Amino acid sequence: MPSTSLIFTSRDAHRAWLASQAALPAGFRVGTTRFDFTPREAPKPATMTLTLIALDRPTPDFAAMFTRNAFPGAPIIVGRKRLSEPTLGAIVVNNKVSNVCAPGGVEASERICAVTAELLGLAPGQVLPSSTGVIGWTLPVEAITGALPQAVNALTGSSILPAAEGIVTTDLYPKVRRAACGAGSIVGIAKGAGMIEPNLATMLVYLLTDVAAPRRELRAMLARAVDASFNAISIDSDTSTSDTVALVSSARVPCDNLGAFERALHQVCRDLAEDVVRNGEGVRHVIRVVVRNAASLGLARALGKAVVNAPLFKCAVAGNDPNVGRLIQAIGKHAGAHAPGTNLANLRASLGGIEIFGAGVFQLNPEKELALVAHLREAELYASHPSAGGVFTPPIDFPPHERCVELVIDVGNGAASATVLGGDLTHEYVSENADYRS
Amino acid sequence: MPSTSLIFTSRDAHRAWLASQAALPAGFRVGTTRFDFTPREAPKPATMTLTLIALDRPTPDFAAMFTRNAFPGAPIIVGRKRLSEPTLGAIVVNNKVSNVCAPGGVEASERICAVTAELLGLAPGQVLPSSTGVIGWTLPVEAITGALPQAVNALTGSSILPAAEGIVTTDLYPKVRRAACGAGSIVGIAKGAGMIEPNLATMLVYLLTDVAAPRRELRAMLARAVDASFNAISIDSDTSTSDTVALVSSARVPCDNLGAFERALHQVCRDLAEDVVRNGEGVRHVIRVVVRNAASLGLARALGKAVVNAPLFKCAVAGNDPNVGRLIQAIGKHAGAHAPGTNLANLRASLGGIEIFGAGVFQLNPEKELALVAHLREAELYASHPSAGGVFTPPIDFPPHERCVELVIDVGNGAASATVLGGDLTHEYVSENADYRS
Repeated sequence: MPSTSLIFTSRDAHRAWLASQAALPAGFRVGTTRFDFTPREAPKPATMTLTLIALDRPTPDFAAMFTRNAFPGAPIIVGRKRLSEPTLGAIVVNNKVSNVCAPGGVEASERICAVTAELLGLAPGQVLPSSTGVIGWTLPVEAITGALPQAVNALTGSSILPAAEGIVTTDLYPKVRRAACGAGSIVGIAKGAGMIEPNLATMLVYLLTDVAAPRRELRAMLARAVDASFNAISIDSDTSTSDTVALVSSARVPCDNLGAFERALHQVCRDLAEDVVRNGEGVRHVIRVVVRNAASLGLARALGKAVVNAPLFKCAVAGNDPNVGRLIQAIGKHAGAHAPGTNLANLRASLGGIEIFGAGVFQLNPEKELALVAHLREAELYASHPSAGGVFTPPIDFPPHERCVELVIDVGNGAASATVLGGDLTHEYVSENADYRS
Repeated sequence: MPSTSLIFTSRDAHRAWLASQAALPAGFRVGTTRFDFTPREAPKPATMTLTLIALDRPTPDFAAMFTRNAFPGAPIIVGRKRLSEPTLGAIVVNNKVSNVCAPGGVEASERICAVTAELLGLAPGQVLPSSTGVIGWTLPVEAITGALPQAVNALTGSSILPAAEGIVTTDLYPKVRRAACGAGSIVGIAKGAGMIEPNLATMLVYLLTDVAAPRRELRAMLARAVDASFNAISIDSDTSTSDTVALVSSARVPCDNLGAFERALHQVCRDLAEDVVRNGEGVRHVIRVVVRNAASLGLARALGKAVVNAPLFKCAVAGNDPNVGRLIQAIGKHAGAHAPGTNLANLRASLGGIEIFGAGVFQLNPEKELALVAHLREAELYASHPSAGGVFTPPIDFPPHERCVELVIDVGNGAASATVLGGDLTHEYVSENADYRS
């Protein structure tokens, strides 16, 4: 859950808050540039933004985790190699084209790293590449290398906001979160799963810190933080071929308390993960599932995922319908298929703090139904209306509140807990992903 | 794939064809009755249909398979006990209320079996109960037992069509399939995943035959047929708490070729499974995925399921968009998460007979794109249009054709094959499951 519970009444108020969070840690600069190009596989021009994140001096203290999709993008293949390099000096990100299973994709990513390195006085192996966008298109390498000098010229050390805006594509708004740690800070940005273009579903996250933490510790802490944050969310159960989470330390501020650093890292990751869900494709309700007293962490996490990935329950939430039969269906579907020995006789469930299931039977009545509907309505981010042609478009460009649909599932059968976040399934999701032909 | 490839130009033509398939095997009668009742948990009256399937004399030769959901409905709990009874004499089915996790649910099912048995001169253990409908509501036992005599009075031995119509709820049309076997036949009916009411997603299938086959053989053959048919389809990845497939033989016709009987059984099951998908909630394209040359049957089936359950690919198909990047994403998602050692270097994929992926890269060009769009358009069951308020309602009450979106995935890495059927993800699905508040 977020470190703060924010309410924004306008886009300007949200942007002012983002700016207040965006001061870059010492030792980093960011710069972006935009340009038009014509994809080889498409008939009309498109616009690409290049984002550079540069360290004032290369650092050995960096970590990165990548998608588990078995068809990873070329930048993922290159990025995995970078993990064994002694130091990292820059990250170069493009949107619009994801460079996945395209002919010559790895060579294209390496060429972009080489030109970036030359401009910044680095070796190519000191540059981490990222790409997000249409799967199957070829990267416009010459256009990108031609634009890189402008991105270098734009490098500034004040705010991370230009990078947060540069990496998004169809997100409704940029995402920035920060946490203080002693005299230093961790500042993170994320590109979520907004989608009005055909193939765009990548999650990219960059976490920058000036707090000194050794590479080995950084990598272990990032793995733990990702597991409890980005690995505990689902918009639609689809796994991008380009997902990347990178953590880089400029080591400018000595760290006297690694435990405090790790707690701050977890907070930033959890906040950004929730931001990604709240701005997920077509999401009108964020669903938070707390699973308690399960036999294992794996089962707790899996039951939460089963709930937020169950299409019928997600549709019910979209309609402000407390259709708890579908919730029990989702739990039983997972347990029956993947944990058939599980004792569910003690399972209890609540929605919005109201008990809905216990002692093996539903605990429902007409009064509770009204209260459950009220809870769902309060968590709604915006009202849904079709425009001409029956196309549904989210009418917001800022998050109006941070309330969630709150589910608690007490398995009554162990000691493990997990929190999983997901969204509802709406007409806006279908419109973003079906109602177009470019 | 279906034994026939049918095209219907009107509801009447479809009904006439159904009637031609519906002759009951010797030894069976069916009867139905409808009545109104007021659910204990709901403010307004509803209509329920009771369907009776009765054997002229009880048979030891019956088989049944049930949902794997860990919260099974009360009729499932009772039905599992019936498998160890020496004989079966009747099946009693109600729609509207599924009797899942409702207080006193098992007692309610047993009471209905007892009254049915008394009316038919059977023992209660000779009656198999089934229920489908809202999860969480309580069965109106008195109203049901009061209506049972009318269902008994309605029993006739000519056509199974009244039962096919009696068990549906929000399906767009009834489903009947038959196959001849020597001098006998197998005739099956199915209730699919139509859904305009909150909690209705049960699949119920009843297969009746006059061909004599021993109980042990029947059960083994049903398990194999279900595995290759009903277990190889997915509308939306949700698993009902009430799924039931029953196979009953009246043993009136001697069987001299069990192999031929099993082939006929497989055909009826595959045809009905495809009918269920074609009439799935909001389905506008049936997607058939043939996976070839996989390392195991399990992997072949799982890759097919991963494709038909991938929301982004399903949305693309709904929009007649050959977004093959999302297809490769879905394959890689499954392999990366569940079969990480799989060699995918030889994977080839085609859509509508057109190669789209091979040698590790996409095989695309603008001409292929046009042909792929044409293939998707040909497989569309109806055009999508919102009505007032942005609600999408399927405009058909018969299946206009049996064409599918045809995908072939050659893993190039083994000898196992599987065929999986699914549907697209449409505004009609969301409207059926979110756009209501009763």
